[in-house]
Amino acid sequence: MLNFEYHNPVKIVFGRGTIAELDKLVPTDTPVLMLYGGGSIKKNGVYDQVVAALGKRSVLEFSGIEPNPLYETCLKAVETVRREKIGFLLSVGGGSVLDAAKFIAAAALYDGVDTWDILAKGAEVKAAVPLGAVLTLPATGSEMNANSVISRSSTGEKLYFSSPLVYPRFSILDPETTFTLPERQTVNGIIDAYVHVFEQYMTFYLNAPLQDRQAEAILLTLIEEAPKVLKNPLDCDARANVMWTATNALNGLIGCGVPQDWATHMIGHELTAFYGIDHAQSLAVVLPRLLTHCREAKKMKLLQYGKRIFGIEFKKETECKAVDAAINATEEFFNSLGMKTHLSDYKIDANEAAGKISRRLKERGTMLGEQEQLSPDDVAKILIGCA
Amino acid sequence: MLNFEYHNPVKIVFGRGTIAELDKLVPTDTPVLMLYGGGSIKKNGVYDQVVAALGKRSVLEFSGIEPNPLYETCLKAVETVRREKIGFLLSVGGGSVLDAAKFIAAAALYDGVDTWDILAKGAEVKAAVPLGAVLTLPATGSEMNANSVISRSSTGEKLYFSSPLVYPRFSILDPETTFTLPERQTVNGIIDAYVHVFEQYMTFYLNAPLQDRQAEAILLTLIEEAPKVLKNPLDCDARANVMWTATNALNGLIGCGVPQDWATHMIGHELTAFYGIDHAQSLAVVLPRLLTHCREAKKMKLLQYGKRIFGIEFKKETECKAVDAAINATEEFFNSLGMKTHLSDYKIDANEAAGKISRRLKERGTMLGEQEQLSPDDVAKILIGCA
Repeated sequence: MLNFEYHNPVKIVFGRGTIAELDKLVPTDTPVLMLYGGGSIKKNGVYDQVVAALGKRSVLEFSGIEPNPLYETCLKAVETVRREKIGFLLSVGGGSVLDAAKFIAAAALYDGVDTWDILAKGAEVKAAVPLGAVLTLPATGSEMNANSVISRSSTGEKLYFSSPLVYPRFSILDPETTFTLPERQTVNGIIDAYVHVFEQYMTFYLNAPLQDRQAEAILLTLIEEAPKVLKNPLDCDARANVMWTATNALNGLIGCGVPQDWATHMIGHELTAFYGIDHAQSLAVVLPRLLTHCREAKKMKLLQYGKRIFGIEFKKETECKAVDAAINATEEFFNSLGMKTHLSDYKIDANEAAGKISRRLKERGTMLGEQEQLSPDDVAKILIGCA
Repeated sequence: MLNFEYHNPVKIVFGRGTIAELDKLVPTDTPVLMLYGGGSIKKNGVYDQVVAALGKRSVLEFSGIEPNPLYETCLKAVETVRREKIGFLLSVGGGSVLDAAKFIAAAALYDGVDTWDILAKGAEVKAAVPLGAVLTLPATGSEMNANSVISRSSTGEKLYFSSPLVYPRFSILDPETTFTLPERQTVNGIIDAYVHVFEQYMTFYLNAPLQDRQAEAILLTLIEEAPKVLKNPLDCDARANVMWTATNALNGLIGCGVPQDWATHMIGHELTAFYGIDHAQSLAVVLPRLLTHCREAKKMKLLQYGKRIFGIEFKKETECKAVDAAINATEEFFNSLGMKTHLSDYKIDANEAAGKISRRLKERGTMLGEQEQLSPDDVAKILIGCA
């Protein structure tokens, strides 16, 4: 195990009917900015519950935060925060709204010249407006971490930042808010969580058996619960299990003391930035081919994964086949949820994508993978394989 | 899943050489009281590392905190804290020192008449001196929770309290500090952690598959790593794995949204209070008989546990045998570590213990078990079974 620090101060309030707890959690002595997306919360009753719980607080609203939230949109909210002296941000929605809230929180108090530097140059976040969340889409884990991913329309970039100052003070997770999610979003969320686990688990072997099994606990639960929520979107137990599982996939715990990869996410972000496909779609396309490309470096963990998750037994002489079977089983799981796993399914030319993305990574001097073993040329090969 | 709140703000600093981090973690502007036990930290180098890291801070020492820390001892430390205007407590040792530190932290600022009320009457803790920990014995999980168990010599009682105000601000977990632990303490710690999982896992079935698997991850890891540390006490990987696993056994995560039992601990505390046996010894004695007594209520989970942990397969008609096998495998695991699992092994008369303990529980009006289904008479039967 590697040395590590773990400190996750987010207060989780989980369960049906918990939105009413906002009244205890949101400060009363400062104006609050409520952030949300396209308005689905007005149809499913979440908006009304939030407004009722906030009561007589001074609340302004900022809506229209898009999936893959835009820097340009965030800047408008930053203006509001500064002008109205907002002292608390309340994100009501999925990971996109929450990621935007985190960036807005940091950008509003940023003392540098250009807030884009937080994302592009890793400029230090020295202060942030406190924030809390009502989560309506299990997927990103943003509700219990300090990460945020923001896209910039003008440059076609998608970048992230992380700061302990943007941990939500609280996150309310009411599984009932997910009953009305469109199937595509439900599936996207499950795959996002699954791949979050992979980025922290599917690396080289490092004798961290607890973290391995905690990661496998999440994968097994997602595989078990996913068909249930697709079959019956009102299955409250299954919805609750998916919601809490997605949170655990990226709250830092399974990543304690182990190597991490994140190449699938980094390549996926570029696919979304260039072609606008959903985040989870990009991951589902990239992951199987990345695993194939890195099969030697990840062999021990691929064998362990295949055996523990899918019951794929192996002997020394059948290891190669077992690795294939584990990768195939992963792709088949994605497909079984209705998720397409090839670039051609999204009408993206693989050669063009490989060229564009590897060029950009070369310009940035980016190496990927848990040992920085993936060059831009490797990424090009992986993307061509995604055709 | 049941509704729940989870909020664990402890900062974990894990790994070899991390005691030096104290310099960044302990405040410099207030006198510090360093608490420790019988002095083993002076032999294994931990004391010197701590003193070096604290540098020129104003540090007082309070040593002699015993296993099953005594209320009477804690009161002496409380006097020191008040007299010397101590602003930070640093626990250096295992769960006993840390539990004492938590009680001292709360008692020193208690505004009621009798600090014993914190333990005996659940008197509210409204303030506590901040504290941090250097852990030297993986066992209790106290390093990442808000619980404390204290014994009172004059009355032979062993009681607990819990308050979010006594979460350690940080806990340093350096597996190297555990290299020189006597085998008995190593084994005690492993069994304590194992039974912590049971108290949160081995209840009635409630459709919380992630929490179940997170619990099983801990059990499997303990079973796998325990023989390694016994065979080679200097196996740093195994020591690290045991240490992090014990922390995860009682940091609240696997208990989120599930029923909890704690009867084994409550009965075990009485055995320790009356007869002075080690905490883990008391648990190892009680657990197998408690499982047998509650086999119907816990049947589904016993079957799941047997299958997933020990590979005990079953059909409808062999369920009864599979439950027996799961309970036996648990006791055999304890025995395989050299732990005795009968009261007679500790020269305790089972009938006498059953009488004394059930009488005390009756006086207190205590019912035990995840559904308060265990009466003092049930406890007597369980203890007679422990002969």
